[in-house]
Amino acid sequence: MLIDQRKLPEVTEYFDATAFDDMLFAIEEMVVRGAPSIGVAAAYGLAWEAERLTRNTDPAHFLETLEDRAKRLKATRPTAVNLAWAVDLMIREAHMLFERLNAGASRRDLEQVAIELKKLAVEILNEHIEINKRLSDFGAALVADKAQILTHCNAGSLAACGWGTALGVIRSAFIQGRQPTVLVDETRPRQQGARLTMWELSQDNIPATLVCESMAGHLMQSGKVNMVIVGADRIARNGDTANKIGTYNLAVLAKYHDIPFYVAAPLSTFDADLESGACIPIEHRSEAEVTSMAGVQLTVSGARAYNPAFDVTPADLITAIITEAGILRRPFKESIQSALGLSG
Amino acid sequence: MLIDQRKLPEVTEYFDATAFDDMLFAIEEMVVRGAPSIGVAAAYGLAWEAERLTRNTDPAHFLETLEDRAKRLKATRPTAVNLAWAVDLMIREAHMLFERLNAGASRRDLEQVAIELKKLAVEILNEHIEINKRLSDFGAALVADKAQILTHCNAGSLAACGWGTALGVIRSAFIQGRQPTVLVDETRPRQQGARLTMWELSQDNIPATLVCESMAGHLMQSGKVNMVIVGADRIARNGDTANKIGTYNLAVLAKYHDIPFYVAAPLSTFDADLESGACIPIEHRSEAEVTSMAGVQLTVSGARAYNPAFDVTPADLITAIITEAGILRRPFKESIQSALGLSG
Repeated sequence: MLIDQRKLPEVTEYFDATAFDDMLFAIEEMVVRGAPSIGVAAAYGLAWEAERLTRNTDPAHFLETLEDRAKRLKATRPTAVNLAWAVDLMIREAHMLFERLNAGASRRDLEQVAIELKKLAVEILNEHIEINKRLSDFGAALVADKAQILTHCNAGSLAACGWGTALGVIRSAFIQGRQPTVLVDETRPRQQGARLTMWELSQDNIPATLVCESMAGHLMQSGKVNMVIVGADRIARNGDTANKIGTYNLAVLAKYHDIPFYVAAPLSTFDADLESGACIPIEHRSEAEVTSMAGVQLTVSGARAYNPAFDVTPADLITAIITEAGILRRPFKESIQSALGLSG
Repeated sequence: MLIDQRKLPEVTEYFDATAFDDMLFAIEEMVVRGAPSIGVAAAYGLAWEAERLTRNTDPAHFLETLEDRAKRLKATRPTAVNLAWAVDLMIREAHMLFERLNAGASRRDLEQVAIELKKLAVEILNEHIEINKRLSDFGAALVADKAQILTHCNAGSLAACGWGTALGVIRSAFIQGRQPTVLVDETRPRQQGARLTMWELSQDNIPATLVCESMAGHLMQSGKVNMVIVGADRIARNGDTANKIGTYNLAVLAKYHDIPFYVAAPLSTFDADLESGACIPIEHRSEAEVTSMAGVQLTVSGARAYNPAFDVTPADLITAIITEAGILRRPFKESIQSALGLSG
């Protein structure tokens, strides 16, 4: 059961995504969104599907069918790496469990595999929440008393399956008594800031003010922003960061105004295979998301629109990356390498 | 009769603003908007009011009453200087006409004054259109073949009572065969780009793509923007420019990406009394413009929002200012002084 993030904040409605196609739909249509959350959702989707396959599929085709499902999940949203990360983890586990079986697995064997995969999905979820809290504690140390923090999109408990990354840092700072106030970018075209971040902050009674993306420069120019914190969908080995469209604007503006710009993300957001952000695939979504809103046409009929869902912020605009392994600073290539335990 | 800009592009409806209070409402509620257009609308409002006063007011109180109306008009929208400019021009003319009369003006004298004021309003309108075309021709010379131009808000014929300033430049370049394509910022929170600029461009068959403000950096980073052109609501003597909120973001982003950033505005937009942009009053509008759209609530109920309608772009981010007196370049203090015919 997922909170239907398309319907917040008007109603808190749940979406039943135990059937695999429902989970595919939920990820594609953003019933569930946020890089860590879609990773965990995909893991659950695969676990439930594995259970269903134990009843309906020839054991000889079990792995192959599960891999087909994994491929379909990974194709839904190409930018966030956590989706691929969680799916690959599940598939690797399935392979490992199969290798332990004798040739010709019985249906009972499959049931055991499905149970183990469910355990792994639950583990991924619980570990994510732990990790969020750990990185939020590191990040909270960067928040000055009464800091005015600008954030973009939603990197809270909805996006990160509990607690949150960027919003987790703010939440932890608030609990520690730092009295932060938050400026929330509405985040066009899907209003994740207006709908989701404002909702989470109001649930926690953290003072928040909704702003439009167009106001960021003016807010910084008039001294109303002390720091910017955002989440991430994929981080390359050199620190280049893909995140919700509009993040790069904020990074350039923060640099120009000499305001610290932080990215908060778990290590599972890093893509060790990518040297730099240049190769991060950018998802393009439907033009209708820009030309209409809540069923209301916003422009002339037949208008063309452009709708990249993410942008890439080069590492040199990022002050630090807040992870569960601590605050990573420049030079990022070295600090990321060490946090991920990679060899040079 | 004004085109009701609140209702475009769904319907082309006219708003009858011959009664003075209707014109006040029209300017305040943005039935008519755009710095030059509200100046001309205010001049017409005063001219019609003068005619009404010839029938209803003691000639001894005529000027005083007209000045009260002028004050109320100027209080509606504080940022654009054209409103004050046009209103002051009308009031100065009324004073001059009165001075020519013998003491104790007759009702017939008043009628003559009202006729002259109407003539002046028509002149202001016609001159604005002429000026727009002149500055657009200067500006078109800056547009390269097949240039991809990013613009913000609406600085077209709706904003500038015919032809347009920023959009006038694009229109003239298009007519001259330069084949520009336009990226149109939707311009939150009132969608003037989505509603008005997209409408004007589609009327003229100029290729246009709607984008969100959040996409500007990404568009520039991916080489999709060759130049930025915007209008202006008020320009100080040093070139600092107030324009629709979000303009300053674009100027910083353009500077960072080494993309030329042009302001197009008639000389009536310059405020010779202002040394710099620091003193330009910024209009703040209702929070509801940010928290809801087309009657749909966009965020949690009771949410606070911030809604400055304009921002100020410092002169050092502006490549050139396109006026009817030619292209003004740095150092702006000198080029503006010379264009306005001011002494140092």
